[in-house]
Amino acid sequence: MLGTFTFSNPTKLYFGEEALEGLKTELPKYGRTVQLIYGGGSVKKNGIYDAVVSILRACGKTIVEDGGVMPNPTAEKLRDGVRIARENNVDLLLAVGGGSCCDYAKAVSVSVHEPEDPWIKYFARYEDPTCEIVPVGCVLTMAGTGSEMNGGSVITNTAEKMKIGKVFDERVNPRFSILNPKFTYSLPMRQTVAGVYDIFSHICEQYFSGTDENVSDALSEALMRTVVSASRIVIREPENYEARSNIMWAATWALNNLIGCGKTEDWMVHMLGQAIGAYTDATHGLTLAAVSLPYYRLVMPYGLPKFVRFAKEVWRVDPAGKTDEQIAEEGLCAMHAWMKEIGVAVSMRDLGATADMIEGIADATILMDAGYHALTRDEVVKILNESL
Amino acid sequence: MLGTFTFSNPTKLYFGEEALEGLKTELPKYGRTVQLIYGGGSVKKNGIYDAVVSILRACGKTIVEDGGVMPNPTAEKLRDGVRIARENNVDLLLAVGGGSCCDYAKAVSVSVHEPEDPWIKYFARYEDPTCEIVPVGCVLTMAGTGSEMNGGSVITNTAEKMKIGKVFDERVNPRFSILNPKFTYSLPMRQTVAGVYDIFSHICEQYFSGTDENVSDALSEALMRTVVSASRIVIREPENYEARSNIMWAATWALNNLIGCGKTEDWMVHMLGQAIGAYTDATHGLTLAAVSLPYYRLVMPYGLPKFVRFAKEVWRVDPAGKTDEQIAEEGLCAMHAWMKEIGVAVSMRDLGATADMIEGIADATILMDAGYHALTRDEVVKILNESL
Repeated sequence: MLGTFTFSNPTKLYFGEEALEGLKTELPKYGRTVQLIYGGGSVKKNGIYDAVVSILRACGKTIVEDGGVMPNPTAEKLRDGVRIARENNVDLLLAVGGGSCCDYAKAVSVSVHEPEDPWIKYFARYEDPTCEIVPVGCVLTMAGTGSEMNGGSVITNTAEKMKIGKVFDERVNPRFSILNPKFTYSLPMRQTVAGVYDIFSHICEQYFSGTDENVSDALSEALMRTVVSASRIVIREPENYEARSNIMWAATWALNNLIGCGKTEDWMVHMLGQAIGAYTDATHGLTLAAVSLPYYRLVMPYGLPKFVRFAKEVWRVDPAGKTDEQIAEEGLCAMHAWMKEIGVAVSMRDLGATADMIEGIADATILMDAGYHALTRDEVVKILNESL
Repeated sequence: MLGTFTFSNPTKLYFGEEALEGLKTELPKYGRTVQLIYGGGSVKKNGIYDAVVSILRACGKTIVEDGGVMPNPTAEKLRDGVRIARENNVDLLLAVGGGSCCDYAKAVSVSVHEPEDPWIKYFARYEDPTCEIVPVGCVLTMAGTGSEMNGGSVITNTAEKMKIGKVFDERVNPRFSILNPKFTYSLPMRQTVAGVYDIFSHICEQYFSGTDENVSDALSEALMRTVVSASRIVIREPENYEARSNIMWAATWALNNLIGCGKTEDWMVHMLGQAIGAYTDATHGLTLAAVSLPYYRLVMPYGLPKFVRFAKEVWRVDPAGKTDEQIAEEGLCAMHAWMKEIGVAVSMRDLGATADMIEGIADATILMDAGYHALTRDEVVKILNESL
């Protein structure tokens, strides 16, 4: 059964090859000054920056530059972004990039009119915004995080070695997001597949919890099959529009609240991955990949029927003549084979972690309790050792 | 591939056994006078009317009664509702009922401040609203139409024997909808299964078009499997919360734009069903059921790969050793068996249609051209004769 919940998602999405035209519809709704947020400069090489600036100018906007958002945006950068927004009294925060830029823009949006330090209020104390929120828009250049249609924001405190994801309510969602699958063509394949695994993991986190029959899990399976199938195409043909469009659209719906409706959710893989990220600054999706199989093998006995269903529905494992344990294990083996095929079967060591970091990473791991099994600290250490 | 599209759905949903509590959050956002819209009075028998009125009073609202909305709301009733709204200067239209009440409320909402006749402007000429729109809220008591999270409205002109569905944009969506699966427990089983078939048909209309691999079709299959599975439970156990909640949630997502994103869509079954409805005043979902199999058998050769996929993914037809035609036909047979099992395998004659109406129904049928085959008028007559 579906439990009690509310659903509301006000983000307007423009999807397709001509999606950037939507910016011309949206920009007149906001004031004159736009803080243009982007990352390390790839958008300047592939022409997306120029295309956006050209539309901003045609719409009579004053552009305030805010580039250099790093893959794991830091609390220091966030404070700097807030300063820029305040000094220029900006009317719109426009993120042009992947989930990092969009996450960062949302963190700035709730901090411009907040006197307290944003890291302390939102991430350390996990409070909700009580101030005016500056509107955010997004031009997406990487499929993965789902940040384009949710209120989530992940910020890293490098000094404290903490990477924390805050889920804000729908007031913090981007007002609009521009989704052009072609904007993801030029992404390096390692970033593409890290995004693919991030999508897959978001779905797993919502799927591997609960024991009932519900429409949310059925939708999750449909999204997982789509992501697996499209990723196998895109690694061979990076400019396959069909595959890129399916990955981009699945990413959005994998983390915009829909498939979690009425369910309990797990999120333990993300807690482990984020702790690794805080120690290594590794790409988010790959940190999730590193811990997934050791984690799922450990919890499988506690949620066997769902792992059997996962094997049959997502991986088409033929159950004939097999025990439930065998079916479930075959599902995880199929998942591992797919991870190897697309190039995300990585270890923590591949991501820069070393054995002496294990205790620290375990300390930085937040323990969740809504999956099939609440991990002990010893089990966290065991999983991290197996992931090394 | 997914084509170019926009997605935006601003409706806030409150779901679950305590969903009506959401009304207390929503009502303070609107002015004092509420037009309370309901149907033939079942909401007075099952206590839902009293529960809503009690909350309206507690929130200090002035209630303007507007009951008696018929299953197929008429243009005359619509004009009457507009008069009530104008005379009382209402601030919110609150529909308490099924899709008919919600459709009617939306039609009133775009007509209160429109000087032209609503039937002529919106349904005969199919124009978009240019006036101020009165907000709509919905307390849903039947799962089926999806009206609770879309901008659609179907109105019948009895004098002209025309039943037309107008798809308004998201400004006309209910601002909020209250979805309590228990509110559907007391619905007569014939209405329940008519709603179930309406949901299934909404999905088919969006699914049976196009030839590509896309996430929308995968989501459609997940919703279809959920509806089939839950309906088999609910016919035996009308008060099974798990089944009722899955049906109610699937209904909402079957027609809120998601599964049509980036796709062409068919909608020919609805055109045939609506023409039958204009002649017989029969329950909407059953008119769709009456024509579905003759229609799908006729178009199957033109869209064979999708019918094969439908058979395998929705009905789990084993393809081993069979031709594509055999697999597809086995899928339609499985669908027919399910329709018989839940009690919606009806003929047009069961719904009050007679042979002498066929030419008139064919004249009232709007021909669509985005499915696998654009019907000729002769083919419409053939389908209607087979449905009789």
